[in-house]
Amino acid sequence: MSGTGHDPLSPTARSTVRRYHERAATDRQALYDVLDAGLVCHLGFIADGGPVVLPSVYGREGDTLYLHASAGSRSARVLAAGTPICVTVTHLDAIVYARSVYHNSVNYRSAVVHGTGRLLREEEKKRHGMRVVAEHLAPGTWDYGHEPDRKVLARVAVMALDLAEAPVKIRDAPPSDHGDRVDPDKWAGLLPVRTSFGVPRPEARVPDGLPVPEHIRSRRM
Amino acid sequence: MSGTGHDPLSPTARSTVRRYHERAATDRQALYDVLDAGLVCHLGFIADGGPVVLPSVYGREGDTLYLHASAGSRSARVLAAGTPICVTVTHLDAIVYARSVYHNSVNYRSAVVHGTGRLLREEEKKRHGMRVVAEHLAPGTWDYGHEPDRKVLARVAVMALDLAEAPVKIRDAPPSDHGDRVDPDKWAGLLPVRTSFGVPRPEARVPDGLPVPEHIRSRRM
Repeated sequence: MSGTGHDPLSPTARSTVRRYHERAATDRQALYDVLDAGLVCHLGFIADGGPVVLPSVYGREGDTLYLHASAGSRSARVLAAGTPICVTVTHLDAIVYARSVYHNSVNYRSAVVHGTGRLLREEEKKRHGMRVVAEHLAPGTWDYGHEPDRKVLARVAVMALDLAEAPVKIRDAPPSDHGDRVDPDKWAGLLPVRTSFGVPRPEARVPDGLPVPEHIRSRRM
Repeated sequence: MSGTGHDPLSPTARSTVRRYHERAATDRQALYDVLDAGLVCHLGFIADGGPVVLPSVYGREGDTLYLHASAGSRSARVLAAGTPICVTVTHLDAIVYARSVYHNSVNYRSAVVHGTGRLLREEEKKRHGMRVVAEHLAPGTWDYGHEPDRKVLARVAVMALDLAEAPVKIRDAPPSDHGDRVDPDKWAGLLPVRTSFGVPRPEARVPDGLPVPEHIRSRRM
């Protein structure tokens, strides 16, 4: 993994961040962990000379990230053109309350994947990419639901991106107030931020009494 | 607000998304609501010919977005150069489970702000920008904590970005399976995704018995 790195979330994170790319043994696993725990990513590309950042669903298998978009959409055109893209996944774990406002920060985990996507053209490869994305967003859904047919596959652009250059950054630390600012009358610490699933809500056309399937009912973060 | 728009999160979102920029009366408020409810944004810029997407803290006041970075960091250099940037804030509200895997989707709210940032050079303007960011990330903290002094201000790059071109997209809908795929034996619906704060955790140097301040204890999403 390249040490390209990325800037910190706050002016103070730089000094406290643990750089996983300095710990070669755990690099890959840290990257997989951040990507696998995410629900959506932010896809960056260049359009009309400027950067564009859009939320997107995605999935990972091995060292490949899959994305998809409507065939004919702007994303699809960009992905098809083989231009460089950047895919970032971020988890916010806590608000860091310091005594000095300057040291306020956040605890977070992020992965920033740089590369050039490959647009998949073969039907079976597209189907596979869609499966990886579907099973990431909604595990268990591929076998439970109706698989996409050829007509559907034609309407979707599916892209694969190698996890080659993909630095991970993690801040998991208390506030970093300097010693001369540790006023005993001021509270400082972490306010954890949590993401969780609520109670599944059936849509109107689901018959009364049809139970929520196990793969949805038992889903946890 | 421009109709630049952005691509949907999934192949099916396009048809169901409610386009707020078509409802001029609520445009601004919808934009403010999405930005104000966020904790971190994703900042996109171009470096070495490719897009870079990094998580960042931010704050909004009126029609101005503020960001900051360590002076000397890559973000600060990019912001100082007056190049185009893109700032995206996304809220994930639900996983949409459809009967057809192709119609799996997410309910979400996002704002995509395009523009060129102004690096603030005057001390008072920098201080103000830092205050807006601090009060967004950690409301109540500016008055409670130690304000940044001149030395600290010199170490921070603060940038202002006008909310001129900033489309908002919202999907808030059930699964969009076609009628011929509404199998009565298949469950479909929404799995809500929620973000919440946990119990505040004091850092080691906080004296025993010092209560968590009201602005942290009472914070809710």
